[in-house]
Amino acid sequence: MEGYALKYKEELLENVIPFWLKYSKDTEYGGYFTCLERDGKVFDTDKFMWLQGREVWQFATLYDKVENNPEWLDMAIHGAEFMKKYGRDKEGNWYFSLNQQGRPLVQPYNIFSDCFAAMAFGALYKVHQKDEYADITVKTFENILKRRDNPKGKYNKAYPGTRDLKNFALPMILCNLSLELEHLIDKSIVDNLIEETIHEVMDVFYHEETGLILENVNTNGSFNDSFEGRVLNPGHAIEAMWFVMDLAKRLDDSKLIQTATTRAYKMMDHGWDREHGGILYFMDIKNKPPQQLEWDQKLWWVHLETLVCLAKIYQLTEDGEALRRFKIVHDYTWEHFRDPAYGEWFGYLNRQGNVSLPLKGGKWKGCFHVPRGLLQVWQTLDKVTADKVI
Amino acid sequence: MEGYALKYKEELLENVIPFWLKYSKDTEYGGYFTCLERDGKVFDTDKFMWLQGREVWQFATLYDKVENNPEWLDMAIHGAEFMKKYGRDKEGNWYFSLNQQGRPLVQPYNIFSDCFAAMAFGALYKVHQKDEYADITVKTFENILKRRDNPKGKYNKAYPGTRDLKNFALPMILCNLSLELEHLIDKSIVDNLIEETIHEVMDVFYHEETGLILENVNTNGSFNDSFEGRVLNPGHAIEAMWFVMDLAKRLDDSKLIQTATTRAYKMMDHGWDREHGGILYFMDIKNKPPQQLEWDQKLWWVHLETLVCLAKIYQLTEDGEALRRFKIVHDYTWEHFRDPAYGEWFGYLNRQGNVSLPLKGGKWKGCFHVPRGLLQVWQTLDKVTADKVI
Repeated sequence: MEGYALKYKEELLENVIPFWLKYSKDTEYGGYFTCLERDGKVFDTDKFMWLQGREVWQFATLYDKVENNPEWLDMAIHGAEFMKKYGRDKEGNWYFSLNQQGRPLVQPYNIFSDCFAAMAFGALYKVHQKDEYADITVKTFENILKRRDNPKGKYNKAYPGTRDLKNFALPMILCNLSLELEHLIDKSIVDNLIEETIHEVMDVFYHEETGLILENVNTNGSFNDSFEGRVLNPGHAIEAMWFVMDLAKRLDDSKLIQTATTRAYKMMDHGWDREHGGILYFMDIKNKPPQQLEWDQKLWWVHLETLVCLAKIYQLTEDGEALRRFKIVHDYTWEHFRDPAYGEWFGYLNRQGNVSLPLKGGKWKGCFHVPRGLLQVWQTLDKVTADKVI
Repeated sequence: MEGYALKYKEELLENVIPFWLKYSKDTEYGGYFTCLERDGKVFDTDKFMWLQGREVWQFATLYDKVENNPEWLDMAIHGAEFMKKYGRDKEGNWYFSLNQQGRPLVQPYNIFSDCFAAMAFGALYKVHQKDEYADITVKTFENILKRRDNPKGKYNKAYPGTRDLKNFALPMILCNLSLELEHLIDKSIVDNLIEETIHEVMDVFYHEETGLILENVNTNGSFNDSFEGRVLNPGHAIEAMWFVMDLAKRLDDSKLIQTATTRAYKMMDHGWDREHGGILYFMDIKNKPPQQLEWDQKLWWVHLETLVCLAKIYQLTEDGEALRRFKIVHDYTWEHFRDPAYGEWFGYLNRQGNVSLPLKGGKWKGCFHVPRGLLQVWQTLDKVTADKVI
């Protein structure tokens, strides 16, 4: 696996991170541009809080986990200062987006803006211990817990009582967030949250009859036969399985690692497009037509999360099956998403695997899934190699 | 054109309307099923108010404009009674969706639910003069006018003052609605509305520099260089041009007909996919990557509205160019969207023109654009033929 580890490392440090350092910094108003064309040219200046937070997290994490490169720390602080200054309303909720100057564009209707802000300031505090960064992290985290039962608040359009559903994304992110923030949160809160989110992700959203993981279930955890209840998002579920594996490793729970592995394989098999290769974006558990018109597209993050998941399974279990699968997904992903000409990767392919949108970043794609995935795979496989040498 | 007129008539009466009569009636709880698989099988029972209203309108309009077939009137009343009983909140706002039994699922955040409800009850009243149908029409219409400056109300997520935009869809629909409801609304209101909506559609959303029609502009009518401000929806603009032509015909304004024709051609040329044929769904006026992942798909309604528009141009101007264009769009549309095996038409094709979702109806596709388009083209071309015989 040494060859792979090196390949992911070089791609991260020579092809991907330089792209964001060069093109995404807004030196005039602060924060980052994320709407970047294939060659890095800025095509829109709006600033989406998900992506601002994720890029802060990414550069702080590189500084923490790769090397103390001052350019990376500067870049993280550059984004965090913009977020700190303009990102929140008076109650500390994070706006969804700002214009280039930092004026709010879209209200704080989306709790994931808060999740990525907490991740950002938590990671930055690890490498740059300013009290206000810790304070923002903790306050944002407390606010997330307070809002979690009705995350959309007054923007929730569901009529109460007819079909009350809960969504997979929040427990899944909390799974990851609890580890990301444990240096700043009371141990008892972290421990409870870990137990609770593992239960949600592994029991509540699990559809026993098929072995698949659902995106939405009734509040009592049962299956809901509706568009929302039937929807599957293979990439999302696979990503959640590596979050769970990180927790399982910490808890030294080999049974949980095994269960997460089985489910990740199941989602990969179910989501794999036998006709054109790659993993589909959305599916319906009863094979009915999904509502999402983009259901058959191939998205970068789905494939990167799958590679991370398989690398972790291989590290934790040394299962040859993980390696076999890793190679197949690796070949598809590198062949279709990577852009050797301008750096960074494409994000959106059609079903056939051709680039549908040539952008490198936009409203939802920023400096996150590609570099995080490359870093995770590199350091995970490096560990396998190191273990083996020992 | 006689051959085309007959073709559209036969398709409507023998292939499309029988499909909806057979499969969409919910005889148990009332209203219509619109989520229908290729062969008509119901795959979901949710009831979306847009599509309930549109189907009522469609059957009432067939009864009015084609023949007094009692089965059509029964079908229209069947849907209207369900809507009347379950469709509104206490303030008379129309919910976005209900479950099969009629319990509200999604709050009345969408003013187009109200627009299609008004159209439905207005058309039904024409052929079945129950006072309560007139009353519902008028009250709903008044409510639309009251809500039009802030159509999303409390569900509006835009932060006020940073980038206040207005959207093309509402003036466009009001253009059509003002004619649909003129038998029930004061003449002075209708006349003012016609003048105002023609101004909005033809002046405010028109982008002079390119000759194209925008989906969103600043509240003062100027161009806004953002994702929302740059977006083009060729099918939407082309549909609006035939609404305007209906008004222009009524006003006997040949200059307006000519302007609408020029703009419709421009949008068709701009939206036409030179690589694979068909008209693209979304574009960016500056050729930047659009936000909509489904931007390059080919949608049924876009093509039907284009055929209606071209038929009307031909009727009003006898321009050979309209006929030439009609034949090209006709050939593409009938070859790719029509389903000779099971009746009705496919709705969603990928860029290459292959069926991406094999459904005949769903959350957004119901008994509306295909039958309305076929009816409009048939009766428009029939009129050309009749005029020529005279």
